[in-house]
Amino acid sequence: MASAMELVLLFIITLVCTLSAVAIQTHPLDPLTPAEFKLVRTIISKSYPTSSSHANLTFQYVGLDEPDKQTILSWLSSKSKPKTQIPRRAFVVARFEKQSLEIMVDLSTSSIASTKVYKGHGFPMMTIDEQFVASDLPFKYKPFIESVKKKGLDLSQVVCTTFSVGWFGQVKTNRILNIQCFYTNETVNLYARPLEGITVVVDLDEMKIVGYSDRMVAPVPKGEGTEYRASKLRPPFGPKLKGSAFWQPQGPGFEIHGQTIRWANWEFHVGFDIRAGPIISLASVYDLEKQEYRRVLYRGFISELFVPYMDPTTDWYYKTYFDSGEFGFGQSASSLQPLTDCPSNAAFLDAFYQSSQGSPVQIPNAFCIFEKYAGDVMWRHTETGIPNQVITEVRPDVSLVARMVSTIGNYDYIIDWEFKPSGSIKLRVGLSGILEMKGGKYTHTDQIKEESYGTLLADYTIGLNHDHFLTYYLDLDIDGEANSFVKSNLETVKATVDDHGTPRKSYWKVVRETAKTEADARINLGLKASELLVVNPNKETKVGNKVGYRLIPSSVSHPLLVADDYPQIRAAFTNYNVWVSPYNKSEKWASGPYTDRSRGDDTLAVWSKRDREIENKDIVLWYTVGIHHVPSQEDFPVMPTLSGGFELRPTNFFERNPVLKVLPPQHVNLPNCTIKS
Amino acid sequence: MASAMELVLLFIITLVCTLSAVAIQTHPLDPLTPAEFKLVRTIISKSYPTSSSHANLTFQYVGLDEPDKQTILSWLSSKSKPKTQIPRRAFVVARFEKQSLEIMVDLSTSSIASTKVYKGHGFPMMTIDEQFVASDLPFKYKPFIESVKKKGLDLSQVVCTTFSVGWFGQVKTNRILNIQCFYTNETVNLYARPLEGITVVVDLDEMKIVGYSDRMVAPVPKGEGTEYRASKLRPPFGPKLKGSAFWQPQGPGFEIHGQTIRWANWEFHVGFDIRAGPIISLASVYDLEKQEYRRVLYRGFISELFVPYMDPTTDWYYKTYFDSGEFGFGQSASSLQPLTDCPSNAAFLDAFYQSSQGSPVQIPNAFCIFEKYAGDVMWRHTETGIPNQVITEVRPDVSLVARMVSTIGNYDYIIDWEFKPSGSIKLRVGLSGILEMKGGKYTHTDQIKEESYGTLLADYTIGLNHDHFLTYYLDLDIDGEANSFVKSNLETVKATVDDHGTPRKSYWKVVRETAKTEADARINLGLKASELLVVNPNKETKVGNKVGYRLIPSSVSHPLLVADDYPQIRAAFTNYNVWVSPYNKSEKWASGPYTDRSRGDDTLAVWSKRDREIENKDIVLWYTVGIHHVPSQEDFPVMPTLSGGFELRPTNFFERNPVLKVLPPQHVNLPNCTIKS
Repeated sequence: MASAMELVLLFIITLVCTLSAVAIQTHPLDPLTPAEFKLVRTIISKSYPTSSSHANLTFQYVGLDEPDKQTILSWLSSKSKPKTQIPRRAFVVARFEKQSLEIMVDLSTSSIASTKVYKGHGFPMMTIDEQFVASDLPFKYKPFIESVKKKGLDLSQVVCTTFSVGWFGQVKTNRILNIQCFYTNETVNLYARPLEGITVVVDLDEMKIVGYSDRMVAPVPKGEGTEYRASKLRPPFGPKLKGSAFWQPQGPGFEIHGQTIRWANWEFHVGFDIRAGPIISLASVYDLEKQEYRRVLYRGFISELFVPYMDPTTDWYYKTYFDSGEFGFGQSASSLQPLTDCPSNAAFLDAFYQSSQGSPVQIPNAFCIFEKYAGDVMWRHTETGIPNQVITEVRPDVSLVARMVSTIGNYDYIIDWEFKPSGSIKLRVGLSGILEMKGGKYTHTDQIKEESYGTLLADYTIGLNHDHFLTYYLDLDIDGEANSFVKSNLETVKATVDDHGTPRKSYWKVVRETAKTEADARINLGLKASELLVVNPNKETKVGNKVGYRLIPSSVSHPLLVADDYPQIRAAFTNYNVWVSPYNKSEKWASGPYTDRSRGDDTLAVWSKRDREIENKDIVLWYTVGIHHVPSQEDFPVMPTLSGGFELRPTNFFERNPVLKVLPPQHVNLPNCTIKS
Repeated sequence: MASAMELVLLFIITLVCTLSAVAIQTHPLDPLTPAEFKLVRTIISKSYPTSSSHANLTFQYVGLDEPDKQTILSWLSSKSKPKTQIPRRAFVVARFEKQSLEIMVDLSTSSIASTKVYKGHGFPMMTIDEQFVASDLPFKYKPFIESVKKKGLDLSQVVCTTFSVGWFGQVKTNRILNIQCFYTNETVNLYARPLEGITVVVDLDEMKIVGYSDRMVAPVPKGEGTEYRASKLRPPFGPKLKGSAFWQPQGPGFEIHGQTIRWANWEFHVGFDIRAGPIISLASVYDLEKQEYRRVLYRGFISELFVPYMDPTTDWYYKTYFDSGEFGFGQSASSLQPLTDCPSNAAFLDAFYQSSQGSPVQIPNAFCIFEKYAGDVMWRHTETGIPNQVITEVRPDVSLVARMVSTIGNYDYIIDWEFKPSGSIKLRVGLSGILEMKGGKYTHTDQIKEESYGTLLADYTIGLNHDHFLTYYLDLDIDGEANSFVKSNLETVKATVDDHGTPRKSYWKVVRETAKTEADARINLGLKASELLVVNPNKETKVGNKVGYRLIPSSVSHPLLVADDYPQIRAAFTNYNVWVSPYNKSEKWASGPYTDRSRGDDTLAVWSKRDREIENKDIVLWYTVGIHHVPSQEDFPVMPTLSGGFELRPTNFFERNPVLKVLPPQHVNLPNCTIKS
């Protein structure tokens, strides 16, 4: 029990934190500040006291409780200066006495607004620190120490990491994870040297080992050739790339106000969440003709990333990760390295999340923002059709990129949001990092007689086949909330000479189909020639086209697991490339709010079964980028980036080309420069 | 008849040209030089004398007669310095007395090696000058002048352009084209102001009008809002992009030797052809581990570009262009503008083609070569799995782009070949320029009751639906000529607990299928999960994988015309996204050598019917990038670039990541610079 003095101190701290939180707060969608994280911890710790010897309250998720959309929109359009502060609330998922608690904290009153015990299946996201603690358990566990000894390995060179275990039909599920271990002797590329066959099962709520097996199935692959640090590699180095400098004498073209970015004709807010990572909100584009900003995207983020591996055997079958819901894209953000992760003209933003114990953890340089000068052409035309004239007009392209890199164990995901002056938003994810590799007995493909579930990359090393399905949440608000989803199907029309008096036998026409309910908007791409649009049916251009944006996919993949396989039940939201749902504040996470060990009973696929009306409603577009990955030797020991993505492109949104009147940026020569490298 | 003096002069000129041609000649795949064009003209004019009053010899195509592949490869591997010059030959298609002549000119002996009269269907590519002459004919043609007067238009503001007419089942075809005209009053955007309903038919061999109709169907759309020249536009301008400077203190990373480019680990030759435009040959990548250049691509270029419009009515049905075979991607190359078409660090190369009369015509700055610093990440990894260490290794990406822009009338095609240090080649085409627009009676979509075949873009202006199918010819020679085409199909395997002792119900595995004959390699993408590879079945990595490159498509489209529609018969090579054929020197043009008014009897689709063997042979991969284009208002009055493309990516070609040992380029700071804009 706290003393009177302690309570007074607590009150003062709370007050200071609250005041400082208010003082620096400028935007209602800003992520929680360090002070706010501390306040949350203070408030909750008061209500859930834990004995000092056995701390059993852990903070699994702490994030901004997003204010209601209408509240945000009124705030946004309010003319008062400064704008009235919207009361800040934090949403917390805590584990306490083996239960998941959903706690709403009112930061303005420093009180708990509501508490609910979650009774459904699945568990909250794992925190980084509990995984860290769990990874250390084997080193005090005798059977494990003996296994390592038996293999003739140096225990001090062994490291262990954590793996979510999924759900495979179990009636009762505990909050467990698997631990597998690696040998780092000679290398930091631990994934290349698995101690195949050893699996340690840890109960996270008990924080103790509850299962162990050592099947001793394969030799540890060699460390040779697995290193990737320049400082440890031997010459020859290459290929050689020459140094360069980039200079903007008038400074960058963008402005950062808190978390709000303004650049060229774009304005948007960069948020951050421990689970989602980057959240782009309130993206609006300035319409030069209408002389106003027009709304495009209310909120967008990667809702889930499903990564199933294709090995059905004992030590591997369960590896079917949900990288966002289980591991947290936000808390896995890597600090970006200036000059390599982002070009020299980048600006950086930090991010914060909470530890298991509720303390704020800083990620320095979690975001970078930079102008991309890729040498592309925004538009051009050369006209030679007018006698005695050659007209050439060209506008070089520049775009703005907001980047975060999330490293989930072995894989590095480079998440780019690219805004173009033409009104397009390009979303791209680059996959780099290190493959998950399985130790094996092979040194040559000739020896492989049975299915190996992957590619032989090096001696005793198989890179396992797997998929990446990234599901984007895109709450487009094209010129307002009420939007419709339109399939512009390109349909072949057969013709005879009687129809038009010409010998042409066919052409295609556009048949527009507005989705009435969710069922109309579930789409597997690639089967039909269609343009997919989100339009505002209440707004049209002068000549009468509905204003809209269309989705331009890049390459398309579909799941190959059978629908009733457990991982696919949990990831049923990948069954279609496209879904559209009515906006519902609670439907943020495609895999459901409690993804770890989930049973697929609270996913986008389940919500969509209600088949709600989506015409002329506030709607959300869910789009899944899928990549099947058959590893190749080039991916070893570290993977050259492989990219996927899509474009959201204005389609009859503007009256005309919105960059018609852009002028080429002024070119700057550098006549008198001194090299300083 | 020439006098003795003239003959002597001719001999001297010929000798000088031959010598100069030899003197500057360095690479057997270099395009013909101005001197060689002149020599060709001289040699052929001697054999086909034309009366001075009526010149009826025209040069439709003059290009390098590519030496045999084995000759090139021996030359390439020859160690003698200087290398022995391979005799240069020019292949000529001339029109003479209404016949197409195929003339082989031996430039080393200044003689005609062979002549053949082409007897098949179709005509050679139209030259720019004959189209120019044809476009002028209406202005001396009374019915046309009267039509213009009747419409109340100023004839001096009318311009006309040429349109290929295709083939629609006619038994007898002449070498005709259609002329349509536009009003430029108030604008240079002629395509926005069609004189709808007027069609002039010109016989190119006769160079006279052979048909005329004026159906006076629609008002001429307004000029207002169609201008795109910055100098003619009124403020406000925007969005504003800030100026910048790029500097490489040690100069660019690439070297240009004649037409050969060396950069980082790449070496390739940039050729040029009046029909194909850019031709990339002998692309080899340096293998740091093997310490040698390894062959990847023997020759690649855009073989054809099919652009059918989707309006079956009288004035439009025939608009089904073959932009390469009819109009010539090479002769349509636009001079690139420094600082806008290509960044400040670009180098430029000129190109030459022949006029109708055989004279060399220069295209200054036809190519640009530049290093692309787009802010991408080549590879990265952050490792937090090792206690008390955070390891972050990042390599920023740089690539080399070779660019040409081909402007076929209204459309501008930005053709990029991008070489990456990781061994990938990215091929991309950007579509910009101006839409083909049809005059109409509508000012609002509400008025449109029947099919309009496009999008209402502005008053009286419809942007017509159309497709772009770009067929790339890719003669990959992966570590040598003998290659195979492999489909790595990703196939679902169902499993029960009895199979592996686990509850996993499914996974996918890779089933490799080597195409034996051409029929096995005709592929419509999107139907099946497959990786498509070209491998060398005779070369493997240490662990036994076949060395190869794979094709990674971007978005995929298929033709929507019925197979027996005339344009689709001619463009049957687009019926599949992928074809593979055995290398055959004569099979270069997917639409056949004589595309204008062709009947589809000599296309890739016809050659492929022979179903030749393609396993472990010298093979050619044909890949078609398809884009369905439903115009939007943003495309008016000039189109923001829309891109399509694909990647050729090394797949078990290298033993490991070929950029593992790349070092980040040295960063250069600029402390003491003076602005000079």
